[in-house]
Order: sequence, then structure tokens, then C-alpha cells
Amino acid sequence: MSEQTRITPRCEEYSRWYLDVIAAARLASYSDVPGCMIIEPNGCALWERVTDIFDARIKATGHRNVKYPALIPLSLLQRETEHVEGFAPEFVTIHSLNGSKLEDPLVLRPTSETIMYADFAKKVKAASDLPIKINQWCNVWRAERRTLPFLRTFEFYWQEGHTAHASETEARAEVMDMLQEYRTFAEGTMAIPCILGRKTPGERFAGAVDTFSVETMMQNGKALQSATSHYLGQNFARAFGIKYSYGVGESEFAFQTSWGMSTRILGALIMSHSDDKGLVLPPRIAPVQAAIMLIVDKKTSSDERRDGFLASVRRQLDNAHISYVLDATDRKLGLKQYDWEKQGIPLRLVVGMSEIERDQVTIIRRDTSAKTTVPLDDLGSAAALQLAVMQADLFAAAQERLQAKSRVCATLEEIRAAFKEGNFFVHTGWSGTKDDEKGVKEAGDGVTLRCIPLVRTAPYVDKCFLTGKPAEHQVILAKAY
Amino acid sequence: MSEQTRITPRCEEYSRWYLDVIAAARLASYSDVPGCMIIEPNGCALWERVTDIFDARIKATGHRNVKYPALIPLSLLQRETEHVEGFAPEFVTIHSLNGSKLEDPLVLRPTSETIMYADFAKKVKAASDLPIKINQWCNVWRAERRTLPFLRTFEFYWQEGHTAHASETEARAEVMDMLQEYRTFAEGTMAIPCILGRKTPGERFAGAVDTFSVETMMQNGKALQSATSHYLGQNFARAFGIKYSYGVGESEFAFQTSWGMSTRILGALIMSHSDDKGLVLPPRIAPVQAAIMLIVDKKTSSDERRDGFLASVRRQLDNAHISYVLDATDRKLGLKQYDWEKQGIPLRLVVGMSEIERDQVTIIRRDTSAKTTVPLDDLGSAAALQLAVMQADLFAAAQERLQAKSRVCATLEEIRAAFKEGNFFVHTGWSGTKDDEKGVKEAGDGVTLRCIPLVRTAPYVDKCFLTGKPAEHQVILAKAY
Repeated sequence: MSEQTRITPRCEEYSRWYLDVIAAARLASYSDVPGCMIIEPNGCALWERVTDIFDARIKATGHRNVKYPALIPLSLLQRETEHVEGFAPEFVTIHSLNGSKLEDPLVLRPTSETIMYADFAKKVKAASDLPIKINQWCNVWRAERRTLPFLRTFEFYWQEGHTAHASETEARAEVMDMLQEYRTFAEGTMAIPCILGRKTPGERFAGAVDTFSVETMMQNGKALQSATSHYLGQNFARAFGIKYSYGVGESEFAFQTSWGMSTRILGALIMSHSDDKGLVLPPRIAPVQAAIMLIVDKKTSSDERRDGFLASVRRQLDNAHISYVLDATDRKLGLKQYDWEKQGIPLRLVVGMSEIERDQVTIIRRDTSAKTTVPLDDLGSAAALQLAVMQADLFAAAQERLQAKSRVCATLEEIRAAFKEGNFFVHTGWSGTKDDEKGVKEAGDGVTLRCIPLVRTAPYVDKCFLTGKPAEHQVILAKAY
Repeated sequence: MSEQTRITPRCEEYSRWYLDVIAAARLASYSDVPGCMIIEPNGCALWERVTDIFDARIKATGHRNVKYPALIPLSLLQRETEHVEGFAPEFVTIHSLNGSKLEDPLVLRPTSETIMYADFAKKVKAASDLPIKINQWCNVWRAERRTLPFLRTFEFYWQEGHTAHASETEARAEVMDMLQEYRTFAEGTMAIPCILGRKTPGERFAGAVDTFSVETMMQNGKALQSATSHYLGQNFARAFGIKYSYGVGESEFAFQTSWGMSTRILGALIMSHSDDKGLVLPPRIAPVQAAIMLIVDKKTSSDERRDGFLASVRRQLDNAHISYVLDATDRKLGLKQYDWEKQGIPLRLVVGMSEIERDQVTIIRRDTSAKTTVPLDDLGSAAALQLAVMQADLFAAAQERLQAKSRVCATLEEIRAAFKEGNFFVHTGWSGTKDDEKGVKEAGDGVTLRCIPLVRTAPYVDKCFLTGKPAEHQVILAKAY
């Protein structure tokens, strides 16, 4: 594995830059299976941070983890009509087993509504069996033709939450609660500003009554849907017979939700903060927050002095709850800098002869490359402060970019002109039907209706940009990953 | 979900009892996919304890986690001859994708040596690229015809560690180190005594030079292979071209290991400690160590008094690092007892009017049903002590059983007589070849050669029970799951 990897500058070719950063930071690599990636140790550690932090929230909000089979009988997938139509083109199917043809082929799960809800139907009899609130962290498969690491792969990883409730009110509250959890996680931990919105009918999850999403903006102005939360109404409950009885001989179908966040979020993370030197990780998500780069000439330094100094550095970081790695290899400082920088470690700490002699440590921030020298005794608090400031700065920068790359447009012409100029989040008016949505592409190649924001953040546009009718909704248009 | 589930007593039918305990403790249930189970929240929490605890050991011993694709091209699986022969009968294969036939079908991983090692070959050039020490927690599939929850399922979960080294010595040390880690985990955390041994050629992992296993004894005297650690030598390195150069123009194939522990270990856990009342969990693996059963008549108790008392109970448990659940439902005490007992919660704490009035708590141990009453102020330390004693008692009981159900036999006749009497670990002499191993079944229906123990714990038998030749090895025979 070569230490030197050229990273294409963003201004040259953004999509190439994205792949180069993934390679340089050793997050993932290509496998022998078309469309499937190998998530390398650095990428896996990052995903484990996501799962650890978000799993705690899933549990704190009253959900429990389960594991359902990855193979789903085709007959189950076919029970909810819209659902199977939405996913069938991407099915990965096993037609025979142990040498004999399967009457009911098995499909590798593209999502688990059907197999879970067939089971819910067995478990729900009375209102007291509700709510069911479960979640699973798993791999899913969708036979995508065009793939891109983390963003769209044949196999990917995610969590899928699934719930069933006795009332619509409770189910709808769950949908919004989990949407807020996604926002809190993306903004608070990953420093990625979020727009929460409702999907238009053409962009809804197959089988849902209402789909809500977390839309985020990448550095190049493109949108990335980072998580979704669906209100399924009674659609699946009817198809699978999830019914509870009440009163005398009365029964009602359950009201359901599902919500998910996948390894896509790592794509969003990379494209939100990284630069031409490689990955940039917000401190709260970084698996390792500091790299101690020891640069000591063995001939001139005393081992005892050095070891004592290092022990103090470690103690300072431990007490400040900062995770770190010690690079005591004999590589040159330049190479160490280059290596930890491209891997996105938030702080690099230089410990050389001059630092040891002066009882101080030099701190270099990954995002700004700002260098500060602090007394050894203040290292813990100084580093903690830098991490906190860096977290806030990255979020602020992403917020500014979102602002700068947003436009308000009233007509199709204005919108076309905007997308000719570059990638933007275009706020405009909408009154179209599901069929009209097909016309959205007239706004520009690849432009889609991202969402109807839950909170309006731009001036009101009173006419639909496509139909000219009075605007029923304010929407955001963008090119999306 | 009915609260009442009859558990078949062990003496009546052990295999039925096993299934009943799984159902009663709500660990797993049957899915609509033949041979696949649904791991329910209680089972999932238990598996998460296994993964949390053992993952920390995997990392502490210098391994990093990765994720390789679940689908492996058939051509890769075919590269190591013995390997493909061993696993081919159980392949789950995808022959077409996106409507077109695949030239190289994709097989759902039965294990990941092949796809990982094809990648290792790309990453290893020089000795400095070694060792590679990685692990993955994932699902694997083997088209088993006869399945049993946790013990043998179509899809199951495991960790698979894979390493490549520059020398045989280093690789062999890794094999033994990880075998010891499995023992430490099984004995220290799960209270299951282990016999570490080497497998005979007929029982080796397909493609390995040497297979070592952790054999454990279930309550009924049957063996369960709880983990394996393989020395792969250079077999796979040759097949995949994992080669490092040294000196001038010299090169050498890497020496490899792989090792795994699966959801089977939960089967071992259930069959090591549970009783006719349901699941029994050793405190160190229990996701919840105590259930507080609040039994307070609302008419007679003061809310304030009760809440204050409960807050003290919680504080005592928190300070003692004891995990707990509070059952404040209005169910009767008997029903609460029954429910938490069958779920295997190590300690049940009764908090009723009489406890509150006397400032004390009644503790009931799951394994012995022993009841003690302790002052509220001593609850934390008293409960911690009971948990520690329970952990030790369960291990001691399992050790005694292992002793009691072990026999030393010199001849085939003696062995047959033993297995007619019941299930035992039979220690005897062995000098057979791989072909002779087929004759082992003459010892009794289902009897297999479990291992050549690394440490002999029984008197020496000087002749091979099958061939009559001088015994080269001392082996253990048993019926196994």
C-alpha cells in the first residue's frame, strides 16, 4: 500500500476528488464483486462510531434491536403492491437451493418491511401488544447499475427501524421523533446542516403514505438524502393482517412507521468537510481525535526524558477524554503530517526535541492547519477546546455554504438559468400533481424535487414554477446523489 | 404473546426443553424462511453482549474490523481445492442479476477466506505489509438441511478473524493466542468450561493445515464446538498469490490463520446453565442483571415514600455498576417472578410494602432461588457479591458436570457400552488415519472424534481403540451438536 496518493483537487473534478479522498484516507476499496466495496479498517471504525452513537439514541427512545433473516420469500415481498413495484427492478434472487428449484424464490432483502410485518401479524392480537418498536442494523442489497462508494452500492449497511402503533397520532409522532433524531445526529455529531422535509408523491417510499427526509447539501451544491422516516399508515398492516381487537368484536389495523439511515451518511460526511488534502473529520465522529507525532532523534534524546514526557502527554489526553494514536515510527515528520492529515485526524500533536526541552506541545488543527504551542500542563484542556471549536467551525462553514448555494426562483426560466450557472438548492413554489413531477426535469438535467421543507427558510413564492397555479407548497429543487 | 409458556422438563425430552427455553425467554422465533430464525430483542441483546465484550478483546489484541462483500464470485471460492469441496454442498448461489445470467455466479459467503485473500494478494508486496490482522462481524449462510435455533441455521452470525504473517512461528502463535481468547471468554464471561484441542484430519476446516477448537459439554453430555482457530499454512496464500519479497529477488508466501465464534455460543450458553424453569444467565453475560419487582398497593402506600425508596434502590445498583430493569407494572408478584425467572435475569429484587417499611430489599437468586433480605443501604454491595458468587457457582457446577460425564475407555467395547449408557466425553487412545476416522461411528450412533486435547486431563490409554496400534494421541469421543 503506497503511502503517496495524489488527490485530484475539487476544482478540477469533484467526483474524482471524492474517490481519491476515500482511497487516500483508506476508508474503502473496490472488491472483486462489481458494485460492492470493501470497507477498510478506517471506514469501518467510522461506521462503528455512527452505529455506537446512534444505537444509543435508538435504545434511549424505547426501541430494541432484532435480527430478521436476510432472505425474504418473494411471495411476502409481493403482498404490498406499491412496495414490490418500487423495489422489484433491484431484486437479487435465489431460485434454487440444495440443487432443487424453489417454488417461492428467496430475495436478498432490499428493506425488511415485508418479512418483519408478516411476523408482527403473528404477534399482535390486542392493543396491549402495541406499540412494537424495533430496529435492526444490517446489510441490504439493491442491484444498482451505477454505483459509487458509500453513496450507492450493491450491498450496503444501515439501520432500519420499524414500529406498529394503535393510533395514527402515536405513529405520526414516532415518524417525526425519529426524523428529529436523525437531524440531531447529523448536525450535532457530524456537523452537517439538515433540511427536514416531506417528500412529494413521486419521491415517496414505495408503500408509504408520507415520507419525510433529511436533505443535506454537499460542497458542490448537490443534495444528498441522508435519512428517511416513513409514515406507512395502515397500508402494510392491511396487506399483512396486523390487527388488534378492542371493545366487543371490534378490530383495527395497526398504524406503522419505518425509518433508516445508511452508510450513505459517510458519503455525506466526506463531501461536507473534506478538502484537497484529504479527509476532514469533525471531532465528535472521529474514531481517533489526535495523532501524537513523536519526532525524536535517538542519538540526542534521553529515553527516560522522552518516555516521561510521552506519559504526561497521554495522561493529559486521557483525562480530557480525547482519543489518540501514538505515531512513534521512524518516518520523517513530513510523512507523518501527510499521512495523518489525509486520514482526517482532527488534531496532530508534534512532540519533538524542542517541545520536550521546553515542556510544551505543538498542536495542528486539521481543518485550518493552524499551529499553536501550549504548555504540557495545559495540553488536555487546550486540545479539548480546539476540538470543540473545530466542531463548531465545521458546522458553521457548512451552514454558510448551504446559505450561499441557495436561491429563490419564481419561474422555470429563472430556475434553468440557476442550474446552468451551477448546483443550488432552489426554493420555489409548487402545485403540481404526481404526474407533473415528471416535468421537473425540465428545470435542468438531473434536477429533482427534493422536498417540501417543514420550516420555510426562504421568501415565499406564490406560483407553481411548472403549472403557474397558485403555489400550494414551497419546495426545494436540486441535483441529487 | 402469551405470558404462559410450558417448558418441557429436561428429563422428559432435552431437545424439546431447549426449544421451549428459547421460546419462553423470547430469545428467537421461527421465521417464514425455512431454517432461518428471527433473533428477538432478548436474544439480540445477548448477542450484543457477546460482540461488545469479545470485540474489545479482538481490538486489544491488535486486530481491526472490516466489512467485505457478502457475495463471493464462485470462481474465487474454487481457487483453493479442499476449501471449495468442503463448502460447495452448502452454497447459496445467485445465477442471474438484472435479468441476465451471470457468467461467474455469486455465492452468499459461507466464510470469507477467499474474497479476503484475493484482496490480501493485492495489498501484500513486502514484509513490511505484514502482518495483516483483521476481523469482521457478519452474517453467513450455509444451506443446512437440518436446522436448530442458534446451533445450526441457514443464516447465522459470527466473527471471523483473518490474518497473514511473514513467518510460520508468528502465525502459529496467533492461532494459539486467539484460541486462548475464546477460552477466556467462554470460561470467564459465560461460565462454560472449555477443552482446547487439535482436530484430527477428518474434522479439519476445509483448506487448513491444522484446526484447533474449543469443545464444551452441554448438560446432557453432548459436545458443542464453540469456537475454532485454524492454522492455514501457505495453502490459501499459494492459491491466491499472497507473497512478500525479501532480500534480492526472493519471495515467500504468507502464513495465515482464521478463527471464528458464532451465534452457536448462545446455544452453548443456554444448554450449560438453564433449568426447567427457563433460561439461566451468568451475571457477566446477562444484558440485565437485576429486575426490580415493585409490588405496592396504590391504596395504602405513599407515592413519595415509594419513589424515594426506589430512587435509593437505583442509586445503590448504579453505584455498584449493576444493570437493571424496573418492573412497575400492575401485574401480580407471582407473574412478575415467573416472567423474569424464565428470562434468566440473575437477581430478582422484591420491593413491596414490607420492604419499604423496614428499609430493606429481598433478593432472589435465579439459579438457586435462594432468598435473602438485606438493608437498603447494603443493597449495592450485597447484590454485587451475589452476582460474583453466582458467576463462580455456575462455572463450578459446569466443571463438575464435565468431570462427572467424562469416562476413560480402552477398547471399542467399553466405549460402546458407555455410549449405550448415556452421553459422555470418552477419553481414549488413537492411532488411526484419516480413513480410519470413518470407523469411529462404530463407537455409537453419532459419536465423533472431537479433538486431541492440548492438555491431557485423564489417565493415559496406550492403545488405539479402533486399530489396536500403540496410541499416538489421546482423544475425546462424544456425540456432538
